[in-house]
Amino acid sequence: MTNSSLPRTSTYTQRVEFGDCDPAGIVWFPHFFRWIDAASRHFFISCGVPSWQETTTTLGVIGTPLVDTQAQFTKTATYGDVLVITTSITEWRNKSFVQDHRIHRGEDAIMSCQEVRIFAGVKKDSPSSIYAMPIAPSIRSLCE
Amino acid sequence: MTNSSLPRTSTYTQRVEFGDCDPAGIVWFPHFFRWIDAASRHFFISCGVPSWQETTTTLGVIGTPLVDTQAQFTKTATYGDVLVITTSITEWRNKSFVQDHRIHRGEDAIMSCQEVRIFAGVKKDSPSSIYAMPIAPSIRSLCE
Amino acid sequence: MTNSSLPRTSTYTQRVEFGDCDPAGIVWFPHFFRWIDAASRHFFISCGVPSWQETTTTLGVIGTPLVDTQAQFTKTATYGDVLVITTSITEWRNKSFVQDHRIHRGEDAIMSCQEVRIFAGVKKDSPSSIYAMPIAPSIRSLCE
Amino acid sequence: MTNSSLPRTSTYTQRVEFGDCDPAGIVWFPHFFRWIDAASRHFFISCGVPSWQETTTTLGVIGTPLVDTQAQFTKTATYGDVLVITTSITEWRNKSFVQDHRIHRGEDAIMSCQEVRIFAGVKKDSPSSIYAMPIAPSIRSLCE
Repeated sequence: MTNSSLPRTSTYTQRVEFGDCDPAGIVWFPHFFRWIDAASRHFFISCGVPSWQETTTTLGVIGTPLVDTQAQFTKTATYGDVLVITTSITEWRNKSFVQDHRIHRGEDAIMSCQEVRIFAGVKKDSPSSIYAMPIAPSIRSLCE
Repeated sequence: MTNSSLPRTSTYTQRVEFGDCDPAGIVWFPHFFRWIDAASRHFFISCGVPSWQETTTTLGVIGTPLVDTQAQFTKTATYGDVLVITTSITEWRNKSFVQDHRIHRGEDAIMSCQEVRIFAGVKKDSPSSIYAMPIAPSIRSLCE
Repeated sequence: MTNSSLPRTSTYTQRVEFGDCDPAGIVWFPHFFRWIDAASRHFFISCGVPSWQETTTTLGVIGTPLVDTQAQFTKTATYGDVLVITTSITEWRNKSFVQDHRIHRGEDAIMSCQEVRIFAGVKKDSPSSIYAMPIAPSIRSLCE
Repeated sequence: MTNSSLPRTSTYTQRVEFGDCDPAGIVWFPHFFRWIDAASRHFFISCGVPSWQETTTTLGVIGTPLVDTQAQFTKTATYGDVLVITTSITEWRNKSFVQDHRIHRGEDAIMSCQEVRIFAGVKKDSPSSIYAMPIAPSIRSLCE
């Protein structure tokens, strides 16, 4: 028996700060997306993928912008809380992938999120135009 | 002929600033959620609903936290762009509602988002615990 | 009589949103710096200086990073407030300038800020290293 | 010989993330203030001061808003960097205190900041109005 059916996971720990909370005293939801974006990048780092600074030069990959996201908010969090984000890639497509994030505070499920992201290249003649590159085998093999 | 089939809509205009953009030179996606949250609140203001500061006292409603969200990112935006967010409520449920947001830059569709939100009350004995209140008819009637 | 002693000023209007406020119900101070940074850039736009995207190509100027800042917080602000930031350049030095920002809500002085900024170039061999360029006469003459 | 002349210090570690960086690829400066605000609060936690949630009830202290700040930016930082913020209180006044923050990346000095803050109470009849309370001896004695 192998672990071939289990995707790699990474964990990312985030303290909640006073300034992350709104007048209701709870985390203002856009901050969850800030942390998930960081967890997304750390997944690749934990797999040994070079930084986007490096892949910009070597592969033309400037990062993994978001195409589509779904999120469910289950419990609130407040400052002083420590959140753990567990991240994995649950599906590989030709030019995109699905990344799953689960945020917990101890046993409590706080939020979950399913993202479709691409590996983006930049059009030479239009630096603010990005496009989905075919997924580089050298990156995918590190992440599976 | 009536306009009964057309939901109310509001529009919210947002400049994109330098600091909203990431090293790829495009809007970092969590900022879109900041603007959508603002557009969500402005929808209620445009319908004549009092501020959450006031409804906290009068109805016990502290705001409309997010339960679930889905978003599709179609085109990138960068600083100097002016974005218009068009917001409507597309479904009323007993204790939640669905709010739809469309972001355009001129004719270009940049992003769309469908949110499930609640009208939240606070538990007296636990100020950071919120719960979904039945939707106040005085609010709903202003918004339809 | 001339207006030679009066510096140019620009004004930048900013709504305060729910998510800009902290658990005390008031603007969390780092947001004032976000708005001041936007006001700083809009000053140059209002003077007719091209965008940093354009000056990156034409002059090698990627923007005006901050070297030193001082700020005084006089009154609090909360969501629903509309703030007006009045910006001027009060001193030109060889490789830096002093920019002054005053934030008001109607008659109320909310915050003031004095910044030392540079016009930054990027070192070719080290894209994350920036340095202070001599101030381009073509920019300065537009701003005086 | 005693260490009576050395103020207490705390350290706060902060990763720099992709989304903290601007189109120039470096940390957008308002984020430094976000981190300094967190370091400010952690100083009190490290001294054993209860959370602001608790002091709101026990002492009427809702937090330590900023009155005045000065900051010097020495070197840039980018994503992947790990920053350490060293915090101390360098002066106690009747109704305010001076807090000093130094940000380093390894040996590199990135930024320093001197803040004047107050311990704030809220006016009962006007929840968004705050005022400077005399500094509670029970807090000060923990921090010296």
